[in-house]
Amino acid sequence: MLLYVLDLIGVAVFAVSGALAAGRKRLDLIGVLALALVTAIGGGTIRDVLLDRHPIFWLADPRYIVVITVSGLGTVWLVRHQRTRPHETAMLVADALGLALFSVSGAQIAERAGISAAGGIVLGTVTGAAGGAIRDVLSAEIPVVLRRGSLYATAAIAGTGVYFALEALGVARGAATLVGMGVVASVRFAAIWWGLQLPEFRLHTDEHPIGDASRDAPSDA
Amino acid sequence: MLLYVLDLIGVAVFAVSGALAAGRKRLDLIGVLALALVTAIGGGTIRDVLLDRHPIFWLADPRYIVVITVSGLGTVWLVRHQRTRPHETAMLVADALGLALFSVSGAQIAERAGISAAGGIVLGTVTGAAGGAIRDVLSAEIPVVLRRGSLYATAAIAGTGVYFALEALGVARGAATLVGMGVVASVRFAAIWWGLQLPEFRLHTDEHPIGDASRDAPSDA
Amino acid sequence: MLLYVLDLIGVAVFAVSGALAAGRKRLDLIGVLALALVTAIGGGTIRDVLLDRHPIFWLADPRYIVVITVSGLGTVWLVRHQRTRPHETAMLVADALGLALFSVSGAQIAERAGISAAGGIVLGTVTGAAGGAIRDVLSAEIPVVLRRGSLYATAAIAGTGVYFALEALGVARGAATLVGMGVVASVRFAAIWWGLQLPEFRLHTDEHPIGDASRDAPSDA
Repeated sequence: MLLYVLDLIGVAVFAVSGALAAGRKRLDLIGVLALALVTAIGGGTIRDVLLDRHPIFWLADPRYIVVITVSGLGTVWLVRHQRTRPHETAMLVADALGLALFSVSGAQIAERAGISAAGGIVLGTVTGAAGGAIRDVLSAEIPVVLRRGSLYATAAIAGTGVYFALEALGVARGAATLVGMGVVASVRFAAIWWGLQLPEFRLHTDEHPIGDASRDAPSDA
Repeated sequence: MLLYVLDLIGVAVFAVSGALAAGRKRLDLIGVLALALVTAIGGGTIRDVLLDRHPIFWLADPRYIVVITVSGLGTVWLVRHQRTRPHETAMLVADALGLALFSVSGAQIAERAGISAAGGIVLGTVTGAAGGAIRDVLSAEIPVVLRRGSLYATAAIAGTGVYFALEALGVARGAATLVGMGVVASVRFAAIWWGLQLPEFRLHTDEHPIGDASRDAPSDA
Repeated sequence: MLLYVLDLIGVAVFAVSGALAAGRKRLDLIGVLALALVTAIGGGTIRDVLLDRHPIFWLADPRYIVVITVSGLGTVWLVRHQRTRPHETAMLVADALGLALFSVSGAQIAERAGISAAGGIVLGTVTGAAGGAIRDVLSAEIPVVLRRGSLYATAAIAGTGVYFALEALGVARGAATLVGMGVVASVRFAAIWWGLQLPEFRLHTDEHPIGDASRDAPSDA
């Protein structure tokens, strides 16, 4: 039941992120709902296909489509009268919440299917990141997961890893789930607002490197 | 049987759209056939995977690959001696026919699988739009489905919606299918040739909006 | 057993190509591992999904994730101290090896599933090309498979075709597999180093063609 509510919240926030991304590209109303839908169902669909869970969650239960449509329309209505343009932060926050919810719930579903912890971490990360990646690719944007300094995959791997670690230590599943999700969201928020970074992997170590870190454009994670 | 013929025509026209898109990017002959194939099988493959229909249609029946190859080669042969370059309209027309055929047949297949009308509309739209979206992403183009004014998703939703509505009113399946497909194609043709539009979803309502509708570049749907 | 070893080598080289592509985009360490993973599992995952083989190979056997992680980290470590930047050739070589391994093994797996030779050639080509295409799309690059002169799909079709032809002639499966893989790799190496090309499919035959072949930018296959 907890998982069901979390899945619904997860599709809702991913739908909001998709609607905001569509608004930034000035799509028409149906384009907004279409991008919201694809973003919201993308991760869970890939998860269900990989784990051979049929029918796919949104085919089996029309409430998901309803939640997505309401979230998309709600986003349109709420931002209709804004005077200023950029809502990229709002989109990244909604996306971070979706990542947190879907990555850990995806790891949990993999675990129940008998998958190893390593496989669960990978599947959870793919489940959490796929929706946003599809949204970004369709909007002709570099996927957030690959932007330097985004810590997107890091957040998902950390959160799902903490989930499995806590369970191994005997913590109850519900608590481990919530803590794991909190870790994912916290890492992404730290990247969005504080510029938290990992070391870079460079292909060269020139004395005068092309694009020295101190001279690079600020991270747009 | 009607569904089989419509599926074959659908892959044929999507193959033509993929071949034309490849020609516009000046790919070599195999590149043309590869893009034609991916465009043609993309939507139906996603449909079969989501509905757990195995074997996948083109793996079970080699006639699809034959139809795709012939359509691709035929497109190459027919346009070999053209003097003028742009065939984007030809590609969009072929694509609109493919969208019409695959979206309504996809909705029908979902219906037979016991899916709700809402799920059928979504699945039909995804089935119809996926092939073109894959073609566009691989060609480094903004997917037609997301271009402002394309009415691409609108067309699919309208046509599949009309299909279910007519059925609920007692119209025979075959007639409802053909009318639904006609609606999809008509909406797309209206967008391509007459610039039919939906209201925009803007993130702001400045007195001097960035990119005022009357000053925007003409729709390239 | 041969197929298992080839699959492991295939994911390893695709992981290397993904890690090199990530390094060229200056991603952080987790970004490198994420792109390496997606590139390495992409083709085999699509193959298993299309052929309804569950559990998916990397979910069933954690060794794949281990091999991918080690390959990714190994690539990072080996190139850490390079002075010069471009490693696109290294990436293309790793990618060509992955294409060779995965396309022919994919064709063989399709054959065992009872698929026709035509379907096996298509499935093998899709299996071999998908990982690299996903890597390229996520890196905001034109997929290698579509770049003019890449002979990417040609290589896969040739190699898988040779595999089926040799088998039909009575050659042992293991030998046919290795020869087929050699054909794929050879065609790609010929394209990378010698500029081997196929005739172009042009949409027009102007006396002064836009982008005359002799005046075009050199192939960047």
